Amino acid sequence: MVSEEVLRTHLQELRRGTVVVASLVALRRPDYGYALLQRLGEHGFPVDANTLYPLLRRLEEQGLLTSEWNTEESRPRKFYRTSDDGEAMLRRLLDDFTAIQTSVNGLIQGVDR
Amino acid sequence: MVSEEVLRTHLQELRRGTVVVASLVALRRPDYGYALLQRLGEHGFPVDANTLYPLLRRLEEQGLLTSEWNTEESRPRKFYRTSDDGEAMLRRLLDDFTAIQTSVNGLIQGVDR
Repeated sequence: MVSEEVLRTHLQELRRGTVVVASLVALRRPDYGYALLQRLGEHGFPVDANTLYPLLRRLEEQGLLTSEWNTEESRPRKFYRTSDDGEAMLRRLLDDFTAIQTSVNGLIQGVDR
Repeated sequence: MVSEEVLRTHLQELRRGTVVVASLVALRRPDYGYALLQRLGEHGFPVDANTLYPLLRRLEEQGLLTSEWNTEESRPRKFYRTSDDGEAMLRRLLDDFTAIQTSVNGLIQGVDR
């Protein structure tokens, strides 16, 4: 019987890289951190604020997101949006994600033969 | 223009967790480290020996792989095989991998709406 701890670690490792993909996809429509967190959760990407917020700052530093303050509401919020560079990166990542799926399926079929 | 360095980091992060999935799938058919390395490479999972060998030992410690020495050839080789626990774990990971794909596609469609 495998421990839940071991399972959780492997699941986390599998998901870690995909949070970047999910964020870049989601931020094709601009949003602020907390709303993005909720949106990702609704779509089956439960992410911790302590993971997501530093990630957004890192992606902005890398030029993959741009940001803009929206001051129209009572509380100013920083809205992030996937930049053109982010879109280019996202396409590479999505291609690679598809390639991984193909590879896994190829392995499954290769072993079953 | 995004640097190749940034791209490589994100691609690596995306692939890291899937090496466990690929290894557990591939070792449904028993194999020794170097042969597995080659097999994964052929199927589009280029993995470094310095990554794969410690991973195999870790998966064995976690009970996800079993191993057996094959001494029939001139050089004894340690053959790994996915254990029943490893198979159970693999099914959870593959389910999760499918769920991630569904989530990403859901996000893409949600944003396009």
